[in-house]
Amino acid sequence: MTVNRRILLSARPDGLVTEACLERVEEPVPQIGDGEVLVRVLCLSVDPTNRVWMREEDSYLPAIELGAVVRAAGLGEVVESRREGFGSGDLVMGLPGWQDYWKLTADDMGQVVPPGIAVEDLLSIYGATGVTAYFGLLEIGKPQPGETVVVSGAAGGVGSVAGQIARIKEAGRVIGIAGTDEKCRWVVEDLGFDACINYKTEDVATRLRELCPDGIDVYFDNVGGEILDAVLLQINIGARIVMCGAISEYTRAESAGLKNYKELIMQRGRMEGFIILDYVDRFIEAIMELAPWVAEGRIKYAVEVVDGLEHAPDALNRLFTGDHAGKLIVRVAAPSA
Amino acid sequence: MTVNRRILLSARPDGLVTEACLERVEEPVPQIGDGEVLVRVLCLSVDPTNRVWMREEDSYLPAIELGAVVRAAGLGEVVESRREGFGSGDLVMGLPGWQDYWKLTADDMGQVVPPGIAVEDLLSIYGATGVTAYFGLLEIGKPQPGETVVVSGAAGGVGSVAGQIARIKEAGRVIGIAGTDEKCRWVVEDLGFDACINYKTEDVATRLRELCPDGIDVYFDNVGGEILDAVLLQINIGARIVMCGAISEYTRAESAGLKNYKELIMQRGRMEGFIILDYVDRFIEAIMELAPWVAEGRIKYAVEVVDGLEHAPDALNRLFTGDHAGKLIVRVAAPSA
Repeated sequence: MTVNRRILLSARPDGLVTEACLERVEEPVPQIGDGEVLVRVLCLSVDPTNRVWMREEDSYLPAIELGAVVRAAGLGEVVESRREGFGSGDLVMGLPGWQDYWKLTADDMGQVVPPGIAVEDLLSIYGATGVTAYFGLLEIGKPQPGETVVVSGAAGGVGSVAGQIARIKEAGRVIGIAGTDEKCRWVVEDLGFDACINYKTEDVATRLRELCPDGIDVYFDNVGGEILDAVLLQINIGARIVMCGAISEYTRAESAGLKNYKELIMQRGRMEGFIILDYVDRFIEAIMELAPWVAEGRIKYAVEVVDGLEHAPDALNRLFTGDHAGKLIVRVAAPSA
Repeated sequence: MTVNRRILLSARPDGLVTEACLERVEEPVPQIGDGEVLVRVLCLSVDPTNRVWMREEDSYLPAIELGAVVRAAGLGEVVESRREGFGSGDLVMGLPGWQDYWKLTADDMGQVVPPGIAVEDLLSIYGATGVTAYFGLLEIGKPQPGETVVVSGAAGGVGSVAGQIARIKEAGRVIGIAGTDEKCRWVVEDLGFDACINYKTEDVATRLRELCPDGIDVYFDNVGGEILDAVLLQINIGARIVMCGAISEYTRAESAGLKNYKELIMQRGRMEGFIILDYVDRFIEAIMELAPWVAEGRIKYAVEVVDGLEHAPDALNRLFTGDHAGKLIVRVAAPSA
């Protein structure tokens, strides 16, 4: 391929991402200078945070500038390197964005990953997704044996793994919340959650009361909004709420507002956010503990691969319509070997 | 006095406490049985939590039952004791409630306090108020030298002390938020805060941006609501929000909702509630550290005493109308000595 297809952000979306917010261009493959690396993008991770970065306000990273390529995590293969430590054919993880070729400059995050792990695994269980579940649950949630753990976005890439880690750590009860009966079935029958609430057809507060008779000790939250509000009413003394994501907020212009936050006072609870980038130095620690659990079948995960860079925007929208289960990945190109 | 005046909760208030919610009765002084203590109430502490307990839903303590005396912390003198460890004339702290005589049963919280400390001090700086500021700021907020600390309810009993402790612990900047220019002046000129925002006449978000150019590291929150929302937009990475109280919520039927909570994710922040009852065993530790600061003049505090049990409801309402500064106490009777 001698053309670099790129998908640029041309306007800030309101709700889902539409073509009106994007500009699809074809440019020559970039030239690199000293200290730079040319990477052919293989796979892109589809994450709620992509949509956060499209908003006008800066978040934990600056907002994507209008006219710039859409920022996204992913994995590619080194085509040409003028930087020590990066050799032709090496696999590199970082933030390539929605394009075929990624010019990795000295300022960009990019790490060579060891060969021998499937690209899909590197972007799911052994990538930010699995590691997010690991550190979020264990460092912030700190579930103790016997405690009740609730996970929203339970069928998603992060939530599905978080619930299984809670189980491994001997939580007394692991309850999921997801958006279809099929997802709920998967979470309970295949992943071993005790129960799963379909928030689109069931009353979350009522079901939580039934399914968590001893209250909620840890809530691993991927969604924020009304579901977080329902959970707050049922937290136990000393409860920990892991704020991993708030996907219900990202496509809204203004939040509906969290009404029950004062329960954190009454129950001496804690609500704490984290960003997995802060744990980059500790990824290997998580992977070393996750790998045997995966090998023993104690952690299962699902990856859905969407073929073609051109489908990246639709894939992202599916996170917000709930039309997926497990980790969603866009395959841009096949590895050369 | 041979009559026990009691103020009972007869209906749940909507907003401020009105006479329609109360029943004022006169009963005989109670008889005590084995293991019980009769206490003549001297002073009552006026706290936002009194109003929380009047709401229908249970909080960290059960809601006050309709027909029961209004629950309140306070201090009294033992008149008659049939319980070991309590002698005639001893000062006892606990939850006497809005009445002249308190029958302390085996189930009630009540502690003998050492003589020699003024009753007003026992209910303010050396009581739950000062100790709340101490543990909330130091155990939850953990301000580091050079950090920016913001305190709402800055002229209140707790807030005024919290800000001064932050100063002692070498916070780089201590900013208060209060409801009148007079309170703001007191907080800055007498207590040594760097600045104080009058939230009734100034735009809190704008002023916070001006006064906290390096962002906010610790927010000691007594009010919740819109002010908490404004602070959330300006927290730094790793910020800690001490949820001491949410007085703006207690008289509302429904919360307006916290809109900016997702900033806790973006900034890896933490919002944590606490209840001073959990620290009862450690009060002495706080008092031992507060006492020299008070003696050296590094902590100043204000106590306003309202005379007469009959004024307890009005005194409580003043917490919500903002018509007080420092700690508000109701004097029920004079000590016998």
